[in-house]
Amino acid sequence: DGPFALIAGPCQAEGVSHSVEIAATMHEVCRARGIPYVFKASFDKANRTSLGGKRGLGIERGLEVLAEVRRQVGVPVLTDVHTEEQCRLAGAVADALQIPAFLCRQTDLLLAAGETGKPVNVKKGQFLAPWDMPNVAQKIASTGNRSIMLCERGSSFGYNTLVTDMRGLPQMAATGYPVIFDATHSVQQPGGLGGASGGQREFAPVLARAAAAVGVAGFFIETHPDPANAPSDGPNMIPLDQMAGLLDTLAAFDRVAKADPVVLN
Amino acid sequence: DGPFALIAGPCQAEGVSHSVEIAATMHEVCRARGIPYVFKASFDKANRTSLGGKRGLGIERGLEVLAEVRRQVGVPVLTDVHTEEQCRLAGAVADALQIPAFLCRQTDLLLAAGETGKPVNVKKGQFLAPWDMPNVAQKIASTGNRSIMLCERGSSFGYNTLVTDMRGLPQMAATGYPVIFDATHSVQQPGGLGGASGGQREFAPVLARAAAAVGVAGFFIETHPDPANAPSDGPNMIPLDQMAGLLDTLAAFDRVAKADPVVLN
Amino acid sequence: DGPFALIAGPCQAEGVSHSVEIAATMHEVCRARGIPYVFKASFDKANRTSLGGKRGLGIERGLEVLAEVRRQVGVPVLTDVHTEEQCRLAGAVADALQIPAFLCRQTDLLLAAGETGKPVNVKKGQFLAPWDMPNVAQKIASTGNRSIMLCERGSSFGYNTLVTDMRGLPQMAATGYPVIFDATHSVQQPGGLGGASGGQREFAPVLARAAAAVGVAGFFIETHPDPANAPSDGPNMIPLDQMAGLLDTLAAFDRVAKADPVVLN
Amino acid sequence: DGPFALIAGPCQAEGVSHSVEIAATMHEVCRARGIPYVFKASFDKANRTSLGGKRGLGIERGLEVLAEVRRQVGVPVLTDVHTEEQCRLAGAVADALQIPAFLCRQTDLLLAAGETGKPVNVKKGQFLAPWDMPNVAQKIASTGNRSIMLCERGSSFGYNTLVTDMRGLPQMAATGYPVIFDATHSVQQPGGLGGASGGQREFAPVLARAAAAVGVAGFFIETHPDPANAPSDGPNMIPLDQMAGLLDTLAAFDRVAKADPVVLN
Repeated sequence: DGPFALIAGPCQAEGVSHSVEIAATMHEVCRARGIPYVFKASFDKANRTSLGGKRGLGIERGLEVLAEVRRQVGVPVLTDVHTEEQCRLAGAVADALQIPAFLCRQTDLLLAAGETGKPVNVKKGQFLAPWDMPNVAQKIASTGNRSIMLCERGSSFGYNTLVTDMRGLPQMAATGYPVIFDATHSVQQPGGLGGASGGQREFAPVLARAAAAVGVAGFFIETHPDPANAPSDGPNMIPLDQMAGLLDTLAAFDRVAKADPVVLN
Repeated sequence: DGPFALIAGPCQAEGVSHSVEIAATMHEVCRARGIPYVFKASFDKANRTSLGGKRGLGIERGLEVLAEVRRQVGVPVLTDVHTEEQCRLAGAVADALQIPAFLCRQTDLLLAAGETGKPVNVKKGQFLAPWDMPNVAQKIASTGNRSIMLCERGSSFGYNTLVTDMRGLPQMAATGYPVIFDATHSVQQPGGLGGASGGQREFAPVLARAAAAVGVAGFFIETHPDPANAPSDGPNMIPLDQMAGLLDTLAAFDRVAKADPVVLN
Repeated sequence: DGPFALIAGPCQAEGVSHSVEIAATMHEVCRARGIPYVFKASFDKANRTSLGGKRGLGIERGLEVLAEVRRQVGVPVLTDVHTEEQCRLAGAVADALQIPAFLCRQTDLLLAAGETGKPVNVKKGQFLAPWDMPNVAQKIASTGNRSIMLCERGSSFGYNTLVTDMRGLPQMAATGYPVIFDATHSVQQPGGLGGASGGQREFAPVLARAAAAVGVAGFFIETHPDPANAPSDGPNMIPLDQMAGLLDTLAAFDRVAKADPVVLN
Repeated sequence: DGPFALIAGPCQAEGVSHSVEIAATMHEVCRARGIPYVFKASFDKANRTSLGGKRGLGIERGLEVLAEVRRQVGVPVLTDVHTEEQCRLAGAVADALQIPAFLCRQTDLLLAAGETGKPVNVKKGQFLAPWDMPNVAQKIASTGNRSIMLCERGSSFGYNTLVTDMRGLPQMAATGYPVIFDATHSVQQPGGLGGASGGQREFAPVLARAAAAVGVAGFFIETHPDPANAPSDGPNMIPLDQMAGLLDTLAAFDRVAKADPVVLN
């Protein structure tokens, strides 16, 4: 078992140079550590808390940015999809697709994502139990596509709060599919700022090291050179210049975890 | 203030005669009680727990069924929509549209529903607080369509369980939009049967009378002549022959509530 | 079935004249409405959020106040107990005892309360399910004392928040013991003010009318002539001069509920 | 920073030879690993789910067992206390006292425990937020006793379920008091077996390694040579012969964590 993989990038694609900067930095940081790296950016924030939240570049321009990142930096790219049509368009450009948590029960979307043949990272809905995810994976797998990742990003815990149940990681891994821990959305405070979601960036590394110790196949971490001025998810993204240190920490726990993995019964 | 309105029907449209039977029965029951009635049926269950769950008739056949109900029984009809394209198609046939709870943050869907000009009933996501709903309503209202209903259907409470916070009803009503209480989905046990959602039918009237006492503009209740053999949501639907009695109960509480409404502060 | 009973009074006994004022007012209000009334006051707030919170008069002085209320106003009195010794002392003066929610699993306390032979009102712990309460009641009943009331006061829902699951009322009633709804503690925000618990007084009547519609044997409502200056629970107590109106509302729902009670299968 | 400390032993003291066996085994295991060890056993299970649950040896006999363990094995001993009187009696024998989670807000108990001058391990109530614990610690510290440990053992998450929020560990550590992670009660399923609490023993090591990675001063782990036949908490105790392996795992994570501790802001 090698080290974990990393899916990282800004919440939104903000333009070619911005995305390339992040991707190139992360590519370098990950290569130095032997960590397989996938660049992530959204072309559309389809479910902002309020209408005034910035939506993103749109699919056409967003996919161009992803293609440029791929071309200029030479890393695989992942983006999230919200409709069957987006699966087809994004599947032609991106190396992997992602199903947002709110949409993880939408059968047609899961099937369309599966049919692209691309790896699919499905976020576990905040309203689902870990043991509900085999049914979700099965929808994708029914297309013959078994490149499926199951991603933990927290469970609803009262209002405007998420909690991460670390038991869910091995429970989901029991499916046989790799499990990804989304460290930055797990510390979101959904709707907590009224017109936007808040976040607790300082706890993302806390939960990430816990997840590393439990054992995961990969991490999903949103990062930005200047989170305070990011158009979305600023309160929970990790500053780009802190990513190397965070990965060193996680890699240290990962080595211990991989040498002595959790075995349930 | 007249009595509450009722949105009721089977979880899925199963065919013309089946839907007409339910609609005609409910139409009669409601007319006798002065309750405005809207027939509800889904043409597509887009988010079944597992792939094997029955999806429904599909949009084309499903909308035909709704049109027949409208024509034969003379009641307005409502159906739920999952994509922008469905908004346009269903908006041409149905008298009102409904946004499923999981999709209540999908901006494009809310805008497309709003743009039909038809009344839109938005279910509150199981992952949202009541005070998050004004942002949801505002997305629809931005289209100029202010025929919006906000619908309570329970909040995530641990795993495979929902809880209804009755405080949410007047909190949502403070938006000025009518509030609907969904009595049958509020007693769902999501994923609780492994490959399907369970339910606690016996508690639907319990929560409904509580909601009536708090005060609501309407109820959403799924009903079926034979819930045990329904293709979905059987465990929480109310048997059709119990609806008259339930409405009598709710009407009695509603009269008291409307005569002495909740005032916050 | 007559109307519900009412347990009401200030959070803390603050002195004879203060308690007598409240008891006399409530006695009058309840007599006019045919509502059996029990005066409630605590002699000790044993579990304040922080050390600086006012504890109360102490058991000796507190029981004197209760005895005076009983003598001067002629109403039965209830107080809460925290130790076996307090059961014996309070049991000699009070007409009924109450077990605080945090202590509802302490076997010796339940037994000691039972052994007084006085009616015991047990609050359901914020950490318990309704179906856990038969075990609690059984501890008291094992003493031969079957004058037991089970009291709903909310369940933990994330941090610093409670939610009331109205399904719990008939579930607890299935034990055969009368169920009391505590309207004012159900709207507490435990620890929500840092050094003290907050509260949402405006929602106490909302939850109370919901509970009345579901059907309860009685209500527990803390009231105070000047909540803003009460030594504890000010944010959720009902102003004394609003109690008559609230009882009228609840009585109206209660009449409907008692005429058409909830039947679970 | 040395390794974490360990508080471990059976849920209940079952007798001298039984306790000595466990203490001697753990003493050996811990000494070999440089882990400071404290034997733990309860003399009274004061809050069993149901009346029929075995209560334990009682305080007199239980304290004799603890004294024997101390004498024969030469390890410090801890036990939990439920009343002020028990604080005085147990404080004269035990090296440290523990406040059960349900009782963590009982001011008199906290003060009495503090006044013994012995270290006090306070379990965080299942109904409290991490940021509520400074108020709890302050009650003990007001006695001049600052040997306080704050112990995480899970938060209420729906019915009959606990969830561990790993963010709570550094939040509580911000008080300056050492934080203990209770690995076995965190996987309890309170009341989940009807007349008894269930548990998920297999997840105790999962949560423990997560906590080790986040960083804790110590662990609390209940262990038994034959959990299936233990009088209480059998479903979540760790078999005694698995403790050495578990501690090796935790020590490996602890070393990484202590070399690179969590820093909040």
